Amino acid sequence: MTDTRKLPIGVFDSGIGGLTVLRAIQDLLPAESTIYLGDTARVPYGTKSREVVTRYAINNADFLVEQGIKLLVVACNTASSVALNTLKTHYQLPVLGVIEPGARRACEITQSNVVGVIGTEATIASEAYQQALRGIKPDLTILARSCPLFVPLAEEGWLAHPITNQISRVYLTDWALDGLDTLILGCTHYPVLVASIKTAVKPSVTLLDSASVVAKTVHDLLKRQNLARDPDSDQARHVYYVTDVPERFRRVGEIFLQRPLSEVIQVDIEPAGRS
Amino acid sequence: MTDTRKLPIGVFDSGIGGLTVLRAIQDLLPAESTIYLGDTARVPYGTKSREVVTRYAINNADFLVEQGIKLLVVACNTASSVALNTLKTHYQLPVLGVIEPGARRACEITQSNVVGVIGTEATIASEAYQQALRGIKPDLTILARSCPLFVPLAEEGWLAHPITNQISRVYLTDWALDGLDTLILGCTHYPVLVASIKTAVKPSVTLLDSASVVAKTVHDLLKRQNLARDPDSDQARHVYYVTDVPERFRRVGEIFLQRPLSEVIQVDIEPAGRS
Repeated sequence: MTDTRKLPIGVFDSGIGGLTVLRAIQDLLPAESTIYLGDTARVPYGTKSREVVTRYAINNADFLVEQGIKLLVVACNTASSVALNTLKTHYQLPVLGVIEPGARRACEITQSNVVGVIGTEATIASEAYQQALRGIKPDLTILARSCPLFVPLAEEGWLAHPITNQISRVYLTDWALDGLDTLILGCTHYPVLVASIKTAVKPSVTLLDSASVVAKTVHDLLKRQNLARDPDSDQARHVYYVTDVPERFRRVGEIFLQRPLSEVIQVDIEPAGRS
Repeated sequence: MTDTRKLPIGVFDSGIGGLTVLRAIQDLLPAESTIYLGDTARVPYGTKSREVVTRYAINNADFLVEQGIKLLVVACNTASSVALNTLKTHYQLPVLGVIEPGARRACEITQSNVVGVIGTEATIASEAYQQALRGIKPDLTILARSCPLFVPLAEEGWLAHPITNQISRVYLTDWALDGLDTLILGCTHYPVLVASIKTAVKPSVTLLDSASVVAKTVHDLLKRQNLARDPDSDQARHVYYVTDVPERFRRVGEIFLQRPLSEVIQVDIEPAGRS
């Protein structure tokens, strides 16, 4: 019988951004093996319908579950907001999204009761964070805004570039007047832009990077359910799968993972018959 | 028998950018009716394989041909570079892409024999413009560079924004030293950024907006093949189809079309059985 604790943690995203979540998990839990799937052939999910995103999320999860995993992390805001409940009922193993942990943490730490959330157009328009925050703390004032230039700036690697600082100020400075004290980075790409985003908000504002909040949630869950891998086991192994050619993922992905992406394998995960 | 001359011109793109080509056609040929299809459910094409892009291009063309068109314009750089020959052999009607007309015009007007081309990562990496230019004028010096921030800047509507000017300079100023005299805007999004791009190159550089070159090519082709619509006919009609929900297309599309987008209809063009 397989020792479930030895199985890797499965993480999927529509593309590259989920690597920030993966990195936080690898940093916090160095004994754990991981399998990452970036659905680069079908990225982005944000512009697609709920039905289509749910279908893609199930494809992705099926693939990871077939490889053998002990826990599934949906490191994609769109899939988390649309398909998480479906995935939770569909599989026997624990399933974690990126939205609820960040929203919960923001509610714990805000003093002013004014919480901001930034993300892609699709994430902000979906109201997923806003609803999660309101569900936890109904009296919260929520500021929400999409920052569409942040993803391409991150993918260009302009991480602490003067232009990125200026764009951050265009997007965020007016919130200083609104008593904001906690800002959720509601997009998996944004953690690499933290230095720039900090230049645009008051020094007292806490930036909540959902990647590290999710890693902490994974840590707690593994401990609680006795699923953590023995730290004395063999070295952890990390495998990366993508659904389109791996070149760009490998190159841009290193910005997000901040270490070399060695083993990147292209796979076809679309169910047979759909070509 | 239908008078072919009365049929609309069909134009497709993976999304919104092709509206700059459509706008140039509508401006130059006000008597012509048009049908536009933006495949917004499956955008972007640039990261997808040749096989997939070709399949999508045929889906799009099938839809437009079924509506009844007299000429097909592929207003998408990726589909033009990958699928144009397939489409030309697949249909009876004339098919025009966006790459060859721009490349041909650049070769006509360059004096220094140094031509630049800018586009998305996928277009530049595909070498489609570079091959077209070399095929027409083998002794040309070709400078090619991707400008990944231009598409999101255009979609944000930061058209002549100081930040857009700065980003243009980051991308383009070093080419001043290289004798560049002709710059092809090799992405359908870029025409709306002309004012900014001009601030980053020498005043003597000609910017070749492929949208207007394609419109001119359409004009010539209709005339040559006796397909132009009688200017005294009823008013031209313009219909817009998209494959995902129309809200964003309508809102962002007006930046590109520079007039209101009235009739935007969502359609399902994927062949039955593929869900």
